[in-house]
Amino acid sequence: MSVTLPRTPLYTDHYEYTMLEAALRDGSAERPCVFEVFGRRLPTGRRYGVVAGIGRLAEAIERFRFAEEDLQDLISRGVVAESTADWLRDYRFAGDIDVYSEGELYFPGSPIVTISGTFAECVLLETLTLSILNHDSAIASAAARMVTAARGRPILEMGSRRTHESAAIAASRAAYLAGFAATSNLEAGRRYDVPTAGTSAHAFTLLHESETAAFAAQIASFGTETTLLVDTYDITQGIRNAIDVAGPRLRSIRIDSGDLDVMATGARELLDELGAKDTQIVVSGDLDEYSIAALAAAPVDMYGAGTAVVVGSGAPTAQLVYKLVEVEGRPVAKRSEHKGTTGGRKTAVRRHKPTGTATEEVVVSQGEPEHQTGDKPLQVPLFRGGELTPQPTLDESRELLRQRLISIPWEGLKLSPGDPAIPVIMRHAGE
Amino acid sequence: MSVTLPRTPLYTDHYEYTMLEAALRDGSAERPCVFEVFGRRLPTGRRYGVVAGIGRLAEAIERFRFAEEDLQDLISRGVVAESTADWLRDYRFAGDIDVYSEGELYFPGSPIVTISGTFAECVLLETLTLSILNHDSAIASAAARMVTAARGRPILEMGSRRTHESAAIAASRAAYLAGFAATSNLEAGRRYDVPTAGTSAHAFTLLHESETAAFAAQIASFGTETTLLVDTYDITQGIRNAIDVAGPRLRSIRIDSGDLDVMATGARELLDELGAKDTQIVVSGDLDEYSIAALAAAPVDMYGAGTAVVVGSGAPTAQLVYKLVEVEGRPVAKRSEHKGTTGGRKTAVRRHKPTGTATEEVVVSQGEPEHQTGDKPLQVPLFRGGELTPQPTLDESRELLRQRLISIPWEGLKLSPGDPAIPVIMRHAGE
Repeated sequence: MSVTLPRTPLYTDHYEYTMLEAALRDGSAERPCVFEVFGRRLPTGRRYGVVAGIGRLAEAIERFRFAEEDLQDLISRGVVAESTADWLRDYRFAGDIDVYSEGELYFPGSPIVTISGTFAECVLLETLTLSILNHDSAIASAAARMVTAARGRPILEMGSRRTHESAAIAASRAAYLAGFAATSNLEAGRRYDVPTAGTSAHAFTLLHESETAAFAAQIASFGTETTLLVDTYDITQGIRNAIDVAGPRLRSIRIDSGDLDVMATGARELLDELGAKDTQIVVSGDLDEYSIAALAAAPVDMYGAGTAVVVGSGAPTAQLVYKLVEVEGRPVAKRSEHKGTTGGRKTAVRRHKPTGTATEEVVVSQGEPEHQTGDKPLQVPLFRGGELTPQPTLDESRELLRQRLISIPWEGLKLSPGDPAIPVIMRHAGE
Repeated sequence: MSVTLPRTPLYTDHYEYTMLEAALRDGSAERPCVFEVFGRRLPTGRRYGVVAGIGRLAEAIERFRFAEEDLQDLISRGVVAESTADWLRDYRFAGDIDVYSEGELYFPGSPIVTISGTFAECVLLETLTLSILNHDSAIASAAARMVTAARGRPILEMGSRRTHESAAIAASRAAYLAGFAATSNLEAGRRYDVPTAGTSAHAFTLLHESETAAFAAQIASFGTETTLLVDTYDITQGIRNAIDVAGPRLRSIRIDSGDLDVMATGARELLDELGAKDTQIVVSGDLDEYSIAALAAAPVDMYGAGTAVVVGSGAPTAQLVYKLVEVEGRPVAKRSEHKGTTGGRKTAVRRHKPTGTATEEVVVSQGEPEHQTGDKPLQVPLFRGGELTPQPTLDESRELLRQRLISIPWEGLKLSPGDPAIPVIMRHAGE
């Protein structure tokens, strides 16, 4: 990664510093605590969630350090007193963090992240942790459904323009994790080594005197290993112009409007008739998992997906929460209605049949699940004593997810609304 | 602004550089062009959109400059050839940009941004422009409806944890523009001078041996000018504990769960009974414009809104597009089905009754609307010859929006689904 990313200590909510200040004053700041990140539920009808953003979280925690100007800003705006700023000056997280690996599946109640350390050092990471995981997991969870719907055909992520300019970079990364083939976003290419792709927009055709002139300009620059966008004026004529200019060895055409099933079928027939039997067809235009699935029988070679993936296809946030579950070894939980949580540090395993199919997740508070054949532990270290542990590459996480999606019961891959693919059984130690 | 933000030239889609390269090669890159940003429609049932992000766009265009490492990245990954990189080395946008002011309303077809310059210099700004405006306008448009629903009661934006960590900062800014009173996001405080607020979470109560101990710690640090969160265990007891510890001059309590109408009513009665007649009630917990409206009769003094505002309350992107509309003075438009656009540079005015109520927006392609009494021009300069013009402050934009929401027909402020508050009449010059 050749770009320098900003420090993160102000990517927080005001109340984290208020709580820190009050806890420093009364001495409770140094109490050993355990915080946990989990989701109370999946988005309505979804059957699994995909853990994403762990790699970004690790980097963001490494950048949670205060420069003098950060401290002065907090003091001058009355967020903290000088004494608290003094404590923050040398802050770096020195505790432990355990996580579900990036690319792992999660379900309601899965203890995705466990943060252990003093109250003071852990409470400051709440908002940053949730922002990253809620965004990236929402995108990866939606993108994984699109990948399933595409049945092996590649998908290009091209939604940068429909989301915040920095969120776009993270969304490209999350979509690639979920199995997308490439992204349009160049910064995601630089920062995370996601393959990038792109050829031309309608503007390039409109810039020229004719569609033929535009195609000729593109071929002159890139040869026939390019994609010509054929629907600026009339698609049939566009395809004829494309093959006229590029010849039958043109790599691909793109169709971005109209009834894509009908258009692709007509395009395939015409391309074959023109001798361009190997010219591929790329379709785009407001595709989501449902419209991708509906094109399964159409002669499509590649999909371009934009808006739906970057906004999580109806679920733009994963709604994960960051809760204090243990103080000095004692389990704690909020008890007011509707928001009850299970206290205590959790240990989680996923159980499997001898065939390898997952059957349930067992989560035990303040203890270990009884061992059974086929158990796979779900939590791995991310930080130990404040030191980042070696992490998998993005491609390794991508492969992990691919394997996990094979391991769940087949109903779990259906696009229709349903229950979580496997249940999470929550127990207290000794139960 | 004391933070250095990153350069933006790679916050783009790959195809912008591909088009640039082909256009440089065939000489079309230098053709004078006009691009336009507009929305084909509002989110379903919405009656207006709020233009937001113009100030951020101006800054981001100023940061669209190439360092040598950016160029080397583009070359090494095969995005552009050396010759194109040479052209990019001294790139800076030298054209004109006209905009609807930040805080202005827009409707389907409103020419929100008009970018004039060579094809080469304008085409590179497509993705960055759309990312910023689509995100910020989506948030401001949702937030403005919440402000209307709150009927003058202040709203605190506290959704940072439910969106990407950088999007969160922009969302705080957009919500403040829309009339929110403050944000929880500290970086938004630093970067945009948005007032910040926050006191404590349930974790702070759980950290302590008892709720009373937690309240005492908070009061010891901040005095009674603070907000005690009373719903960790039992709300009634929580309120009693709060007043026991803080006395009847406590500024406010916060309730974050349960039926907020019932809870607020009970809390008000109890506070009054305890002599805390001036202690205010803040409510939070998955509030959106509808649940805020439903609390109009409840004794609530302030709302905290999180998830709904940062995800645009059902419309997470404004779906604005960036289209080439004019080349060398000639109007151009894509003609394939469903995506027809009107070519030509547009001039827009909003018409008003003598009472000041807006009646329609008139948009003329390649000409000027006929002048009528009550017309207000909608487009103002943002860049002239590549130089940023003096811009309004965020508070001025906030005031502009407040006035504009008064100017539209009253039906336009209804939360229920409906047509755009005023129609946009699109004409060609001479029609």
